[in-house]
Amino acid sequence: MKVYNFAPGPATLPEEVKLEAQRDFVNYNNSGMSVTEMSHRSKVYEEIHNEAQSLLAELMGISDDYKILLLQGGASMQFGAVPLNLLSKGKADYIVTGNFASKAAKEAQKYGDIAVVASSKDKNHTYIPDVDSVAFREGTDYVHLTSNNTVYGTRYIKYPKTEAPLVSDMSSMILSEVIDVNKFGLIYAGAQKNIGPAGLTIVIVRKDLMGKAMPVCPTMLRYDIHAENNCLYNTPPAFAVYMAMLNFRWLKKLGGVAEIQKVNEYKASLLYDFIDNSGFYKNPVQKEFRSLMNVPFTTPSEELDAKFVSEATKNGLISLKGHRSVGGMRASIYNAMPVEGVKALIEFMKKFAVENK
Amino acid sequence: MKVYNFAPGPATLPEEVKLEAQRDFVNYNNSGMSVTEMSHRSKVYEEIHNEAQSLLAELMGISDDYKILLLQGGASMQFGAVPLNLLSKGKADYIVTGNFASKAAKEAQKYGDIAVVASSKDKNHTYIPDVDSVAFREGTDYVHLTSNNTVYGTRYIKYPKTEAPLVSDMSSMILSEVIDVNKFGLIYAGAQKNIGPAGLTIVIVRKDLMGKAMPVCPTMLRYDIHAENNCLYNTPPAFAVYMAMLNFRWLKKLGGVAEIQKVNEYKASLLYDFIDNSGFYKNPVQKEFRSLMNVPFTTPSEELDAKFVSEATKNGLISLKGHRSVGGMRASIYNAMPVEGVKALIEFMKKFAVENK
Repeated sequence: MKVYNFAPGPATLPEEVKLEAQRDFVNYNNSGMSVTEMSHRSKVYEEIHNEAQSLLAELMGISDDYKILLLQGGASMQFGAVPLNLLSKGKADYIVTGNFASKAAKEAQKYGDIAVVASSKDKNHTYIPDVDSVAFREGTDYVHLTSNNTVYGTRYIKYPKTEAPLVSDMSSMILSEVIDVNKFGLIYAGAQKNIGPAGLTIVIVRKDLMGKAMPVCPTMLRYDIHAENNCLYNTPPAFAVYMAMLNFRWLKKLGGVAEIQKVNEYKASLLYDFIDNSGFYKNPVQKEFRSLMNVPFTTPSEELDAKFVSEATKNGLISLKGHRSVGGMRASIYNAMPVEGVKALIEFMKKFAVENK
Repeated sequence: MKVYNFAPGPATLPEEVKLEAQRDFVNYNNSGMSVTEMSHRSKVYEEIHNEAQSLLAELMGISDDYKILLLQGGASMQFGAVPLNLLSKGKADYIVTGNFASKAAKEAQKYGDIAVVASSKDKNHTYIPDVDSVAFREGTDYVHLTSNNTVYGTRYIKYPKTEAPLVSDMSSMILSEVIDVNKFGLIYAGAQKNIGPAGLTIVIVRKDLMGKAMPVCPTMLRYDIHAENNCLYNTPPAFAVYMAMLNFRWLKKLGGVAEIQKVNEYKASLLYDFIDNSGFYKNPVQKEFRSLMNVPFTTPSEELDAKFVSEATKNGLISLKGHRSVGGMRASIYNAMPVEGVKALIEFMKKFAVENK
């Protein structure tokens, strides 16, 4: 049975990327080796490593003012690494628009004076606060936000203008829409949504922000150390970097971020339009802030939600269960989810609504 | 051309493990998905995760007094995590027998009163200090050592009896010889030598040592947090865990650690005996402390060393260049290096010696 995987991450990868990785798994580029076993100091691996970085720079339009770091630990590790590296004055502002934004703020509180300057908690994170009316504090090291909220299905459509560098967790929307990197001091993202397998974390950091880490910052979390060593200070997660490189090539061949954004907008509009007109399913998010990547929805009852998830699974539409803090369902439709997958989901939703009205 | 990969890590993986991973790469266990894209909250992944842990417990004889953690960041991340988790009294002793042991001690000095109580630096780390005559301090949180020194090719043949829990970096010898885990408070190892691809780090920690982390310890480095969440606090490096699980199955099928230890002793003895009797190659390590995993050696001159590495590469014997701090060559012959690989290396060494005497 054809399976469409709507998991929020790790998430579906492009078919041709998987097939290429499979074909070359035991003998990459006639090296006689698998990428899983080659030295990270070898020329053959170094080419993969450097191509991953340069393709990402090209796809996102990242200038030489920034370093691209290939790290480990996921966004959750960056919740600590960001304050440990950037809190030189000891003060930062956070906007809390969901689960991970809240975790990021909580972790930062261990290291300095952290203020939550705006939050969408009052309406269960179904919107993004007006960024123009936020009272940011003076003299902060940075302002932190979460561009797309995986659990609640919201996204920023506009970014605040701040004096302090803007830091964003872009885990669940990186490469899905055009972003002006120059607006940010630092961007980070776990790879397991739009980039590749779990185990790789991307950090894009403006060079002038490095070199001010707190003395208690573990060496392995220091951006400057990784930047100076081209992320070969210790052994990188080589196979995940390789898969990311293949994904970047795939995206470039498709026409890049501007092109995939159109596809993403189309996929999302198909699903949201269907939900809004169904008279059966509901999405709770304010329309203008709806995520292109994560679409939460409910049926009229919790019993039907459970039945929906169970029957969808039997039909090859998997990992649709919503996050425990929201309930219902959530369809994650990242770059690699084909239009056919979204259409198959809608067809199933139609049938289910008719049968259970 | 058949390639034998003597890299110190990432290192050669068993042929049948690679072939199985390749076969199932696009459709694991009839799930319709690759392990690189499946949710870490799915049943199919959870089975992999739990089997990896239970097989490791079985192979190493790890009792219920310990937790097995599947983490990210490599041994280098543990250089910081160990003191951040264990330094509740603020004091620890380190034995420095090489490059990584020295890095571990240096990192720990950021967090407490760290003493290097023994070192082999006086003889360029060609031996292991007598563990019975070390003056360990009183009232320390732990004693740290490095069981096998990848760069210098030495290994502990006996462990000190200490009042404080013994902590060991076993990255380059884990699963290569029988170890009594009960002698240790904590064992850690990067996966990329005897376990699987880079990107996975194993920590085996005695339960009573957890829960005393320093306030500045990042949440993601806290052993208790990972233990409480069965290492699913955030997204684990799922594909590396899967490859580790396949490696553990392979080792179990071979008869386990006691059996592979015999093979490792045989492979090492072939190589050391040849070197010692060659009248051309030299290994600088005191015989009783010679590593079973990493065999450094030199020819009579640096010019010939360079020529050796270059010609060996042309003959499919790759990554033999020694670490920059030692020079010469180094053959890493981990569990997955077949006896034939060691024999092929010796044949080449014989030929090279005759041609260059």
